Amino acid sequence: MTDRRDLIEGFLFTDQYQLTMAQLYWRIGMADRQAQFDHFFRRYPDYGEHKAGYVITAGLGWLLDWVAETRITPDDIDVLRRQVSPNGERRFDEAFLQYLSDLGSFESLTIRAVPEGRVVHANEPIVVVEGPLVLAQIIETSLLNHLNYQTLIATKASRVAEQARGGTVLEFGMRRGPGTGTNAGTRAALIGGANASSNVGTSSLLGIDPQGTHAHSMVQLYMATGKGEREAFRAYADLYPDECVLLVDTIDTLGSGIPNAITVFEELRDAGHSPVGIRLDSGDLAHLAVRAARMLNDAGFDDVAIVLSSDLDEMAMWQIREQIRDEAGGYGLDHASVTGRLMYGVGTRLISSHGYPALGGVYKLVGIDNHGEWTPAIKLSETPEKMPIPGDKQLWRVYDSRGLATADVVSGGDETIEPGDSLELFHPHRSGVSRSLGSGETVKVESLLETVHRDGERTDGSPDLQTLRSRRVEDLGRLDVGVKRLINPHLYHVSVTQQVKATQNELISRARS
Amino acid sequence: MTDRRDLIEGFLFTDQYQLTMAQLYWRIGMADRQAQFDHFFRRYPDYGEHKAGYVITAGLGWLLDWVAETRITPDDIDVLRRQVSPNGERRFDEAFLQYLSDLGSFESLTIRAVPEGRVVHANEPIVVVEGPLVLAQIIETSLLNHLNYQTLIATKASRVAEQARGGTVLEFGMRRGPGTGTNAGTRAALIGGANASSNVGTSSLLGIDPQGTHAHSMVQLYMATGKGEREAFRAYADLYPDECVLLVDTIDTLGSGIPNAITVFEELRDAGHSPVGIRLDSGDLAHLAVRAARMLNDAGFDDVAIVLSSDLDEMAMWQIREQIRDEAGGYGLDHASVTGRLMYGVGTRLISSHGYPALGGVYKLVGIDNHGEWTPAIKLSETPEKMPIPGDKQLWRVYDSRGLATADVVSGGDETIEPGDSLELFHPHRSGVSRSLGSGETVKVESLLETVHRDGERTDGSPDLQTLRSRRVEDLGRLDVGVKRLINPHLYHVSVTQQVKATQNELISRARS
Repeated sequence: MTDRRDLIEGFLFTDQYQLTMAQLYWRIGMADRQAQFDHFFRRYPDYGEHKAGYVITAGLGWLLDWVAETRITPDDIDVLRRQVSPNGERRFDEAFLQYLSDLGSFESLTIRAVPEGRVVHANEPIVVVEGPLVLAQIIETSLLNHLNYQTLIATKASRVAEQARGGTVLEFGMRRGPGTGTNAGTRAALIGGANASSNVGTSSLLGIDPQGTHAHSMVQLYMATGKGEREAFRAYADLYPDECVLLVDTIDTLGSGIPNAITVFEELRDAGHSPVGIRLDSGDLAHLAVRAARMLNDAGFDDVAIVLSSDLDEMAMWQIREQIRDEAGGYGLDHASVTGRLMYGVGTRLISSHGYPALGGVYKLVGIDNHGEWTPAIKLSETPEKMPIPGDKQLWRVYDSRGLATADVVSGGDETIEPGDSLELFHPHRSGVSRSLGSGETVKVESLLETVHRDGERTDGSPDLQTLRSRRVEDLGRLDVGVKRLINPHLYHVSVTQQVKATQNELISRARS
Repeated sequence: MTDRRDLIEGFLFTDQYQLTMAQLYWRIGMADRQAQFDHFFRRYPDYGEHKAGYVITAGLGWLLDWVAETRITPDDIDVLRRQVSPNGERRFDEAFLQYLSDLGSFESLTIRAVPEGRVVHANEPIVVVEGPLVLAQIIETSLLNHLNYQTLIATKASRVAEQARGGTVLEFGMRRGPGTGTNAGTRAALIGGANASSNVGTSSLLGIDPQGTHAHSMVQLYMATGKGEREAFRAYADLYPDECVLLVDTIDTLGSGIPNAITVFEELRDAGHSPVGIRLDSGDLAHLAVRAARMLNDAGFDDVAIVLSSDLDEMAMWQIREQIRDEAGGYGLDHASVTGRLMYGVGTRLISSHGYPALGGVYKLVGIDNHGEWTPAIKLSETPEKMPIPGDKQLWRVYDSRGLATADVVSGGDETIEPGDSLELFHPHRSGVSRSLGSGETVKVESLLETVHRDGERTDGSPDLQTLRSRRVEDLGRLDVGVKRLINPHLYHVSVTQQVKATQNELISRARS
């Protein structure tokens, strides 16, 4: 299996045209020219009735591992050697393959990036790749693959986590996840706000204790062998007395599941243990949660958690909290005491980013070394939003006196923005749209792009999961609530400096002439 | 990288609760009991304004490889050994870990399945797993992961391929695909109807020549170095004279891209080569295709293909063909001559199954050996559709005198259905709904489940991609057009026999009492 994976997940984890273009660049003597590409996305995830006002960048760590570890192997070269054009001749020249083979790896690329786990916005450079044109071009597919999917899932997870309002979120999506890509999804969910996952391998790799309850099949099994739900619960509690969560909907949630769970919980309590929770996996979850809370409280289990699962996402969780607010009083309960004990098992709709299943991040040439002269590159389009911001750039985040991020600013590579600067800012795409920030509005300024790969090594310190999670929490704390809201979020300002605008205008008019 | 992948893609590629339940079964002495689980899905993909009336099953081949190759390694056991309960004790007993370690693999499971690539329907057993309860339970997550995603993508690809009406479909989704899972997506797309893919590694593994054109960056590069689009096209044509497809929308499709392409095509023709195509990647694709066809024809390139890409899916392709039908005449063209030269590059919306990003396939216990007596298992639910069909079963496809499939029939494991049988069939979930098939309506009967894994070996002959693709084509040819249509498809009949219905009713009433 290893050989097969090396073939399909290594150097050849790319689109065919990257390799045919690479051979062209080699043939015209441009393969070794220094080039620069930007990765960015143009639109925030739009899930239909709700949309995102921010994105959590994720995938960089695994991308950097891939870049550092991937080699151009003899097996890879053999695959290319066997490709034949319709005219019967080999598609790739042996001298080109030798050239690729001599390159051997992606080590000559320098990569700058916004650190993983941070809030990022549309139209700003999130990753910047510099190096020989041939490698900077070939890496495109793998880079986009790693970043688009994990960023998509981390962003969904962040929305879900916000709707949990402090409650635990468990990622349960593996069975509906996309092949081995589900492992990347689990990682992204944990970066984006999930507290734990059921995915054993990936959780373990990341140093997180995997979580789970039990399945309906356990109860079915007892029934099929002439016993019942209570015996099943009892056996499970006996084996896991201090982490016992019982799934109560195999037969009849209110009529048998919860009463049987309470019986077993009482036995646990008598033996000196603390039962952890029940899980509801079908039906009217909000109503059942209220009824369950009432029954558990009446038996003296006020602290037992209620784990909800079944097609949950940010909207379903919001609706559930709202319904509990309406229904709890009718059962003599304070709604906050019910919502405060909820935990959320979020599966299919998280791992597949329900409503918006793919992020459209792109990777565009922005500059090339033209015989010693660094030349910005432009791509025209009938849609102004589709034109990348040309040239070498820096990315800055500006905070106001409240400590809130108010704008991200794309400057030229040699520009610096200092706290207290007055800024004249321009819309990245719409001409004539500008705004000013006074010195009192630029209280703190942060440079967002860091060098994360150089000379074949990760230079970002390979941060652990906890570090990535903290970055998200800190950034969300510095983001206006209007930008974070689920529906119709405020549009966060991403602007360019006068210098960048001037370069852009000049290139466009030159290309059009 | 290999060690990490072995850890997260091997035995521990599972949900935590599979392992905690496994320990329970071991502890109560049931781990080695023979059990049977069914894999099926309940609902056809519903993409919003359109939905599927059939599904193409895919993923089985890679699942069977995983089952045959996966070992329970000392590293896996170590991971479990390090898990600790909240009470500070080890979660997994050393004797249980030794037991798992001694099992060593999934070789004792027997797997029957509908062969990969075939049309399957809701509520029928697609894969049936039999073997020791402990292994039949643990495999659930990996089985569903492999089958749900590939089946989802194969089904989407089949819809896309039908809308291509014989035109070539190229899978271009890698950059928007879900991490390494995109390789499974590429495979599924090729099974489901895509003719080729840009994914180099996976195409090569499957024996398919990867396909591609070139990117905007190639043209941008020439512009940035003081040259232009025509020089870029010329260089590309010079290197790939017999497979030259030129991307014409980097600057101005009608004003520069197509005219420059035609100039270069004329040079190719003069040198004795046949240019292959142009590619349109933005703008009003149908309108541009008509205009491009006119310009190409006027230059004598009636045979040059027009490759379309940019957010294509089955609906966009349908709309494009419709618009061309309306517009072609205005440019003096027969619409069929335009649509007949189209090729379709389908990326994001195929690899993410736009509109329906996850298939809800499930895996349910249907029987258990109860001290030598085989006992069917049931799971009750307030929703009748959520109750699995209990017991050991067979699956039959019945064809009428036109050779069209008219019903899939789930029978008891010991029942046989022969051509010419008169059948009394029952709705799998709604009580009292039945229908009869006369002997003239069961002209051909086919048994669909085959043994695909036994004694640690794949027993399906590891069919190649071409075989899987043929199965789909054959099955679609035997499916009513109403079932295949994009919008509001006919509901295909899946029924159970009287014997199965009786077992189901008996178990339900016994469980409820």
